[in-house]
Amino acid sequence: MKTYKDSGVDIEAGDVASQSAKQQSRQTYRPEVTEIGGIAAFDARFGTYKSPLLLGATDGVGTKLKIAIELEKHDTIGIDLVAMCVNDLVRRGAEPLVFLPYVAMQKIVPEIAQQIMEGVVAGCQLANCSIIGGETAELTDIYQQDEYDLAATAVGVVEKTDLISGDAITRGDVVIGVPSSGIHSNGYTLVRKLLLSKYSLLDKPELLRERALGEVLLTPTRIYVRDVLAVLRAGVPVHGIAHITGSGLPGKLGAIIPEGYTAQLKPSTWERHPIFTLIQQEGQIAEEEMYQALNMGIGMCLVVPARSAASVLKLLPDARQIGEIISSKGITPPVTFA
Amino acid sequence: MKTYKDSGVDIEAGDVASQSAKQQSRQTYRPEVTEIGGIAAFDARFGTYKSPLLLGATDGVGTKLKIAIELEKHDTIGIDLVAMCVNDLVRRGAEPLVFLPYVAMQKIVPEIAQQIMEGVVAGCQLANCSIIGGETAELTDIYQQDEYDLAATAVGVVEKTDLISGDAITRGDVVIGVPSSGIHSNGYTLVRKLLLSKYSLLDKPELLRERALGEVLLTPTRIYVRDVLAVLRAGVPVHGIAHITGSGLPGKLGAIIPEGYTAQLKPSTWERHPIFTLIQQEGQIAEEEMYQALNMGIGMCLVVPARSAASVLKLLPDARQIGEIISSKGITPPVTFA
Repeated sequence: MKTYKDSGVDIEAGDVASQSAKQQSRQTYRPEVTEIGGIAAFDARFGTYKSPLLLGATDGVGTKLKIAIELEKHDTIGIDLVAMCVNDLVRRGAEPLVFLPYVAMQKIVPEIAQQIMEGVVAGCQLANCSIIGGETAELTDIYQQDEYDLAATAVGVVEKTDLISGDAITRGDVVIGVPSSGIHSNGYTLVRKLLLSKYSLLDKPELLRERALGEVLLTPTRIYVRDVLAVLRAGVPVHGIAHITGSGLPGKLGAIIPEGYTAQLKPSTWERHPIFTLIQQEGQIAEEEMYQALNMGIGMCLVVPARSAASVLKLLPDARQIGEIISSKGITPPVTFA
Repeated sequence: MKTYKDSGVDIEAGDVASQSAKQQSRQTYRPEVTEIGGIAAFDARFGTYKSPLLLGATDGVGTKLKIAIELEKHDTIGIDLVAMCVNDLVRRGAEPLVFLPYVAMQKIVPEIAQQIMEGVVAGCQLANCSIIGGETAELTDIYQQDEYDLAATAVGVVEKTDLISGDAITRGDVVIGVPSSGIHSNGYTLVRKLLLSKYSLLDKPELLRERALGEVLLTPTRIYVRDVLAVLRAGVPVHGIAHITGSGLPGKLGAIIPEGYTAQLKPSTWERHPIFTLIQQEGQIAEEEMYQALNMGIGMCLVVPARSAASVLKLLPDARQIGEIISSKGITPPVTFA
């Protein structure tokens, strides 16, 4: 193949970024990926599945971007981007297969685009999924100067009978909480407003134990793919999985609890990162509001029969049993805190 | 299922937009889509394929967005979004299956999000692909006021032996050009700079024959899925397909022409929309530069053996034979104009 570029026409920043992204993507190819004439394709024979279903998840990283941009550290925000998408697939029991990132910049800076892709590649390696495409776009006049946005789609596969919706959740099940790595990728508009009026990103508030605020806020979202797939592949009958993002435990765990039941959680059973305490203190925020805005230390919940709890905890050493499913009485909300 | 929202907590704009998007998406479900516990899933048995390959395409619509925003007309830009992704799949011989849009706004306005989705739905219906997910995000401080960005991913399937890369292109093949509907979704930064300093979007420059400039500039990108699939399913041995976007015929058709060959095009064989003449006149742009920035009236090229030309032209009544493949001599670029 040859193009005008080969004839000596100036290679633009966008081309450099695209070529670099493609090169970097190859580090994530699973055995099912082949490149045919420069096109990355994923083998969809799915031989071991009887009724394979494709699921998709699209997401961005919200205004956590602003922290990366302000710190000029762009090589981990891609991990968050992968996490937001693949955690959303795995909570339905699906194995992520392919990933396609979209990077839109006010002006394409190839070095920054490459750093962003480093994070995306690292995230895809953690999630065992392959980057088979993507786009780097320059959008003058849409973004503010030096700003960019990231979005992505992950597509995964699940055996039809193994798709997890939460409908199987019943009384006597227990809730296993898997710790978050911090505030993940939600709540940053609130957090920035509360903390950055008082601290700079380089400050080290006492509560954070010698770590800079920016470093803590930029900690990548945990990717739960291996954790969840390990449990599913061990044959544990998982009744429901919630990825704790935007609306917190009440919203996200609540959304999978069937009518007639309530998840009764015991916050004393898990530790929370000191960043949550810092936010709560600085903002003088009520406990209930904190739970509705932030993950409060639990990034993924698995609802399993009580008899399976021990096996799950053995497979996921840092997970904890954080609550149980009870019958809801009257107007009890789907999630309560004991 | 129930959530805090059901308990009377204010439903936020983001939730309204997400729920509306999901509702609208159902209009695009193909028979392979089932919703299980609220999750849209696509049946991936692909029974008629021997070696199915999944391909993905991610794209945005560039600064054509600015025209939609300035005209406050948001219900067709989603067609462009679909077109940019699915045209990129079908040029490889793949049938688009699923589509996942990402809508990021400075502030979510449910009415605008819904109008955007109307276009996405219309585009997916034209492309026969199903919206099985997506995201509406609010990104304060990233976008300028009232601005938004759109990105999306389409995933499609192709039989391994039918994947079209362009490698089969050889001397004696002909280039069939399928008309564009206008400037599609590329070149808008240039076009806006040239035209909007002189005209308002409501002006009706004489060349545009009574149509307002804004209306012409916002004309949706043509979706070529049915055209191309009709040719492929008729058994025509298509050697290469080029979707004419960013770098025009020289860049995009050029990129699929193998070493040693040149596509010799005859611009006199096709008509171009008067918008191209207007841009060229106003900007005093050389013909060569025009071809490198804009599609110049041809949105999709199919390279087929000369003996197949008549069948293709019968299947695609508005297509034209616009050139042929010759041996390149010396430093001839991959595309020349006769």
